[in-house]
Amino acid sequence: MSISVGILGATGYTGSELVRILYNHPDVTITYCSSRQYNGNKISEILSFLRGYLDIYLEEFDPEKVRQRCDLVFSCLPHGLSMDFVPRVLDNTRVVDLSADYRLKDVSIYKSWYKEHSSPRLIENAVYGLCEVYREEITGARLVANPGCYPTSVLLPLIPLLKAKLIDPRGIIVDSKSGASGAGRGLSLKTHICEAGESFSAYSVGRKHRHIPEIEQELSIASGEDINIEFIPHLVPISRGILSTIYVRALNTRKVLVDGLKSFYEGSAFVQVLDDDMPATKDVRGTNRCLVGIEVNPITGRAIIVSVIDNLVKGASGQAVQNMNIMFGLDETQGLDYIPLFP
Amino acid sequence: MSISVGILGATGYTGSELVRILYNHPDVTITYCSSRQYNGNKISEILSFLRGYLDIYLEEFDPEKVRQRCDLVFSCLPHGLSMDFVPRVLDNTRVVDLSADYRLKDVSIYKSWYKEHSSPRLIENAVYGLCEVYREEITGARLVANPGCYPTSVLLPLIPLLKAKLIDPRGIIVDSKSGASGAGRGLSLKTHICEAGESFSAYSVGRKHRHIPEIEQELSIASGEDINIEFIPHLVPISRGILSTIYVRALNTRKVLVDGLKSFYEGSAFVQVLDDDMPATKDVRGTNRCLVGIEVNPITGRAIIVSVIDNLVKGASGQAVQNMNIMFGLDETQGLDYIPLFP
Amino acid sequence: MSISVGILGATGYTGSELVRILYNHPDVTITYCSSRQYNGNKISEILSFLRGYLDIYLEEFDPEKVRQRCDLVFSCLPHGLSMDFVPRVLDNTRVVDLSADYRLKDVSIYKSWYKEHSSPRLIENAVYGLCEVYREEITGARLVANPGCYPTSVLLPLIPLLKAKLIDPRGIIVDSKSGASGAGRGLSLKTHICEAGESFSAYSVGRKHRHIPEIEQELSIASGEDINIEFIPHLVPISRGILSTIYVRALNTRKVLVDGLKSFYEGSAFVQVLDDDMPATKDVRGTNRCLVGIEVNPITGRAIIVSVIDNLVKGASGQAVQNMNIMFGLDETQGLDYIPLFP
Amino acid sequence: MSISVGILGATGYTGSELVRILYNHPDVTITYCSSRQYNGNKISEILSFLRGYLDIYLEEFDPEKVRQRCDLVFSCLPHGLSMDFVPRVLDNTRVVDLSADYRLKDVSIYKSWYKEHSSPRLIENAVYGLCEVYREEITGARLVANPGCYPTSVLLPLIPLLKAKLIDPRGIIVDSKSGASGAGRGLSLKTHICEAGESFSAYSVGRKHRHIPEIEQELSIASGEDINIEFIPHLVPISRGILSTIYVRALNTRKVLVDGLKSFYEGSAFVQVLDDDMPATKDVRGTNRCLVGIEVNPITGRAIIVSVIDNLVKGASGQAVQNMNIMFGLDETQGLDYIPLFP
Repeated sequence: MSISVGILGATGYTGSELVRILYNHPDVTITYCSSRQYNGNKISEILSFLRGYLDIYLEEFDPEKVRQRCDLVFSCLPHGLSMDFVPRVLDNTRVVDLSADYRLKDVSIYKSWYKEHSSPRLIENAVYGLCEVYREEITGARLVANPGCYPTSVLLPLIPLLKAKLIDPRGIIVDSKSGASGAGRGLSLKTHICEAGESFSAYSVGRKHRHIPEIEQELSIASGEDINIEFIPHLVPISRGILSTIYVRALNTRKVLVDGLKSFYEGSAFVQVLDDDMPATKDVRGTNRCLVGIEVNPITGRAIIVSVIDNLVKGASGQAVQNMNIMFGLDETQGLDYIPLFP
Repeated sequence: MSISVGILGATGYTGSELVRILYNHPDVTITYCSSRQYNGNKISEILSFLRGYLDIYLEEFDPEKVRQRCDLVFSCLPHGLSMDFVPRVLDNTRVVDLSADYRLKDVSIYKSWYKEHSSPRLIENAVYGLCEVYREEITGARLVANPGCYPTSVLLPLIPLLKAKLIDPRGIIVDSKSGASGAGRGLSLKTHICEAGESFSAYSVGRKHRHIPEIEQELSIASGEDINIEFIPHLVPISRGILSTIYVRALNTRKVLVDGLKSFYEGSAFVQVLDDDMPATKDVRGTNRCLVGIEVNPITGRAIIVSVIDNLVKGASGQAVQNMNIMFGLDETQGLDYIPLFP
Repeated sequence: MSISVGILGATGYTGSELVRILYNHPDVTITYCSSRQYNGNKISEILSFLRGYLDIYLEEFDPEKVRQRCDLVFSCLPHGLSMDFVPRVLDNTRVVDLSADYRLKDVSIYKSWYKEHSSPRLIENAVYGLCEVYREEITGARLVANPGCYPTSVLLPLIPLLKAKLIDPRGIIVDSKSGASGAGRGLSLKTHICEAGESFSAYSVGRKHRHIPEIEQELSIASGEDINIEFIPHLVPISRGILSTIYVRALNTRKVLVDGLKSFYEGSAFVQVLDDDMPATKDVRGTNRCLVGIEVNPITGRAIIVSVIDNLVKGASGQAVQNMNIMFGLDETQGLDYIPLFP
Repeated sequence: MSISVGILGATGYTGSELVRILYNHPDVTITYCSSRQYNGNKISEILSFLRGYLDIYLEEFDPEKVRQRCDLVFSCLPHGLSMDFVPRVLDNTRVVDLSADYRLKDVSIYKSWYKEHSSPRLIENAVYGLCEVYREEITGARLVANPGCYPTSVLLPLIPLLKAKLIDPRGIIVDSKSGASGAGRGLSLKTHICEAGESFSAYSVGRKHRHIPEIEQELSIASGEDINIEFIPHLVPISRGILSTIYVRALNTRKVLVDGLKSFYEGSAFVQVLDDDMPATKDVRGTNRCLVGIEVNPITGRAIIVSVIDNLVKGASGQAVQNMNIMFGLDETQGLDYIPLFP
C-alpha cells in the first residue's frame, strides 16, 4: 500500500518532524507540502538538514491540490487557521489536525480559550487522537484531532488510573516541564539561546495555559465527574522532551497502581510502565514512546507519577503518524519503531 | 576590620564559590584552605580559573592551624565529616558549617536520614543560618548551620506565609528543579555532559531526599504544627540555579499573600517579591538573591509560589558569607551586592 | 539474509550506538554483547534508554562464543585490548575493529604513539575501512580497521583533492571541534556538565593527538608524498558532532575543487558536497553523512574546507555498519538511511 | 571622584553588560540610558535581571541631555548610527564608542566593508582602544574606538610577537570560535535555542567577516608591513566566550615566544600568559581577562597560539570601562577585578 500524504505548514517543527518520520515509513509518499511563508522554495532550502533527502517544492495551500493529491493531510497550521482550511478538503481527503481546533468538544469552551469557531459542525465527528485510548474510534475517523503535547504526557498515565478508580479525581496537580521546541520556530527572546539557555523558568502560572481545558475534558470523561486541575508549565533549556510530575491522592498501593496501568497498556507498544525506576526525557528522545514511573509516599498517601515523552514525536508528529497508521489499518508501529538517540 | 577566614574543603563547588565571593569582600583575608585530595598543591593548579587571583597552598586539615589562623572557618566538608572536625576548633574559631550536620535539632531524625551523630551536644547551640529569619540568633552565634540549597528556596517564601496564617500548613507540595552543580564536583554518569545534557529527570522520588526533614523542621516551627511535605527534586541541564514551584492552599487573596511576604522582607535586600511577574533562574545567577512570584488559581483556591535562587550563592556560599557578615556585625550585603551575570 | 553479529564492549557510546543502528537493520540479528564491567546484567539495566528494545544479557568476552555465534563481530574495546582479542576469533568470524589497533600500517609508528603491538602480522591484511575510498578492498576483507572520528572528517574531503592534485599537500592545517561523546563514557572532570558545559577549549595542542599519524598515513598515500599536518582538536559542549575547518593552499578555483570532490563522490550516498553553503553539525546528527563546504579566499589563495560528521555514526558505529554492509554484499546504505534529528 | 556616564543603546547585550559592570564601580554614576525601542520604560522592565538594582528610565537619544548629564558616554549603537550621533556630543562629553565606526583609519576601507562614513574627520583623532597597546594615547583621548571582540582576542597575543619579530607576519591563520551573545540580542533562527543549541557551525567563511580589516590594520601597524590574514569565525552553543586558535610560523622557540609575550604584558593585570597549559573560555567568563597559551610544533615549525576572552567583557563592555578608567586617570582595574563565575 502507498498512502499519498500532504503536510500543511511543513516548515515548522511539527511539519519538519513529520517529514523526518515519514521519510522512512514504508507505506507513505509525500505528495504535497504547503508553506505560506516559503511558498516557491524547495523545502531543503528552508530546512538545511533535509538537503539530499527531500527535494519537494513548497506550495501555497490549495484545497483542490490537496483533494487531488492526498489520501490524508496532516495540518500543522496554527489553531484558528486550521478550522478554516480543514472543511475544504475533508470530503475527499482524511485529516489529522495537529492544531487545537477540533480537540475541545464544547464549542463555548473553545471560544473562551481561543476564539469563535468557524466550523463547529465538524467538532462532533472529530475523534480525539489519543491512540491508546481512542484506538477504535480512530479506525473509522475522517478527522482526527491530534492531542497536545502536554495533554499527551498527562492523560496517558491518568486516564487508566481514573477509569480504574485507583486515584482521587480531585486535587490533581500537574507540574510539567518542556523543551524549547514546544514553543515553535517563531522568533522570540524567550527562545534566544542566550536567554533561554542556562536558565529555567515557569510560565503561564495560574489558570492560563490553553492545554488546561483539553486535559480537563479528557480526565472528566475518564472519571465520570467534572475535574479541575492545577497545571503549571516550565521551560527547560533543551530542544526536545516533556516531563510531567503529577501529584494525586492514591486510592490503593503503588503495586496496584502500577499493575493497573500495565494492564491497560498491555499490547500498546509505545507506553511503558517502569517497575522500579523513574524515566528521563533522554530515554524517549526521537521516539514515539511514553514512559511512566510511579511512587507512593506512605506519609502523605500521595502518588507521584512521572511521565516523559518527546514533545515533537508522541506529543505531536509521531502520534499523528500513529493515528494515520490506525486510520489506514496499518500496524500501529509502522515507521515509528526506533531506539532513542543517545547520547 | 579584617576577618581571617579559612575554608575546609576548598576545591569543591561551594569551596571555590566562597573563594570567588570572598576575593572581593573588603573585610576578609583568606588565611587557610584545606583539601584532603589536593593537599600540597596550589589552589590555582586544581581550579584553573583561579590562576592569578589566589595562590594559596592547599593544606591538610589541622585544627591547630585553624584555631591559630582563623577568626572564622567555613566548613565545606561532606556531612558526617564536618561533625568530627567542627568541635576541634570551635573554642577559638567561629564556624559556618555548610554541611547538614548541625541543621537538624532532633538527633534521632539526623540519625534516621544520615548516621549516628558524633557531636550531638553542639546541635543545641548551633543556629540555623537562614539569615532573614534567624538574623538575631546568628549575631551571637559561634556555630551556624548554613541551610541547604533546596530548603532555602522553599523556606524563604513559606515561613512568612505560615507565620501569618496566609496559607494552609497541610498538603504542601514542593516541585523543585536544580542545576547540576547541586550534585557536587564528584564524578558520576548522572553529571556526564552527554547524559545530563539535553535531558531532564526527576530523582529521589518519594520520601527520599535528605532535605525533607530540614524543610519540615523549619516549616513546623513557623506554623506551630507538625508539617509533612511532598518534595520532589529534578535535575536541570544547567550549572547553577534552583527553581521551586510550591503548591499550597491559599487562605487569602493573592494581594494579601504578596503584601504579607513583602512586609516580612522589608529591609531584607536579598529577598524580592515580584508584583506581576514570575522569576527565572537567570535573574539570580551569581547573586545572593531569592526572587519570589505568587499566583492564586481562583478555581482551585490554590496558591502557586515560584521561587528562584542560585544554589551555590544564596543556596550555599553566598548565604554563608551573609551569615559571617551578621556574625561579625558587618552590613549584611557586604561583598554580596552584585548584578547577575546575564546572559 | 540474516547476519549474526556480536558487539565487544557494548555499553560504551560506540557500542550502544551500534545497538541503536542495528536494531532497525533488516539483515542483522544481535547474538552476543560483551562487557567486562557489567557482565551478567541485562544491557537495558545499564543503558536505560534500551528498556523494552533489547533484553540481551551482557557476557564476558569469550572467543569461543564469538566464533560460534557471530558471522561478524564489532570490537568496541579500547586500543591495546582489541589487538589481543581479535586474533582469537578471526579464523571463523569477520571483524570490524573500532579501535586504533589495526589502522596504522607501520608497526613502529603504532608503537611510538600507543604501545608494542601484540598481533603485528594481522596489520598487513587489515583494510582501512574508509568506505568511500577503500570500498573494493573492504568487500573481501576479514578484518576492517574502522577509521577514527577526526580522521574520517578530514580524509573524506582531502583525499580526492590530493589525488586530483587540486590542493597543495604541504602546509595543511586542521582545526577540529568535537562534541563530548568523542571522549567516551568514562568519568572525568573534563566531561562534567558543570565544567564542559558553557565552555570551549582546545586540547592536545601541539603534535600530541593520536589521530595525527592516522591522518598523515592516509594523506600521504593519497598524495604520493610524505605529509605532515597541523592538527588541533577542540571540545564543544554538545554530545555529538565533529566539524573540521581545514586550511590548505588551493591549486585551482573553488569551482574546480567543488566539481572534483563531487565527481569523486558520485554514487556515494553519504558524502555530500554543498554548492553554496556551509554545513553545521546539526545537519548530520544521528546520520551517517559527511557534508563538505569549500571556499577559496582570493587574497590568500587558500582553500577553506569545512566538513561535518556525527562522530558516533560516520565517525564510528555508522561507518562500521557501512563496512559490514560492504563486506556482506549488501546495499551500502542498508539500515543507515535516516534524516537527522532536528531540532 | 564620581564620573557621570551615559549609555546609548542600553538594552542590548553590551549595554546591559555595562550596567552590570558599572553598578559596582566605585567612581561612576549612571545618569543616562537611551533606547530607541524601549524609550519610556524602566530599564528593569526590559531587562528583568535588573529588577531592584537600577530603576532608571530609558530615554530617547538627545545630544543635549548627554552633553549636560554625562562626563562620558558609552555608545552601544550599531555601526552606522554611532557615527551620526557621536559628533553631536563630543565637544562636551568624552566618548567610548563600542561600534566599528571609528576603528578603521582608512575611510575607504571603512566604506568598502560598511558604508559611506558620515563623520570622517573624527577618525583621525579617535584612539583605537586596545588598552594594553595604546594606553598612553587613550589617556588623553576624547574619542576612543573600542576594539571588536574577535580582534581583541587576536591582537593581544599577536601584536607583541610581531613587534618583537618572533613570528612570521605572512600566512597567519585565525580560527575563532564565539559564544552566541556575540550575535547580539536581535532575533534570528541562527540564535534560536533549538537551532543553535546542540550544534556547531562556521560562518562568514572566506574573506567576509567585518573584523578582518580591523585585525589587518593593527597587525600591519605592529609588524611594519601589509598583512593579510585568514580569519574564519564559528558559533559555539554557549552565551559568552571567544577562543581563537592562531596558526603562524614561529621564528624562535616556544620559550622565547612565551617570555616575549610575558615581558610585554608585565604590569598589565588583565593579560596572562600561561606557562604550561591551555586556557578555556570558562577561565575568563564574566571577567576582563585575556589568557594566552602557546605551543610550537617541532615538525612543522608552527606556533599554535590559543587565546580566550569573554566577548562581552574584554571583548566589549569591560574593555570599554578599562578605557574609561585610563581616560580619567583611575586605576586601570577599578571596578573590573573579579574572579570568573565558575562553574
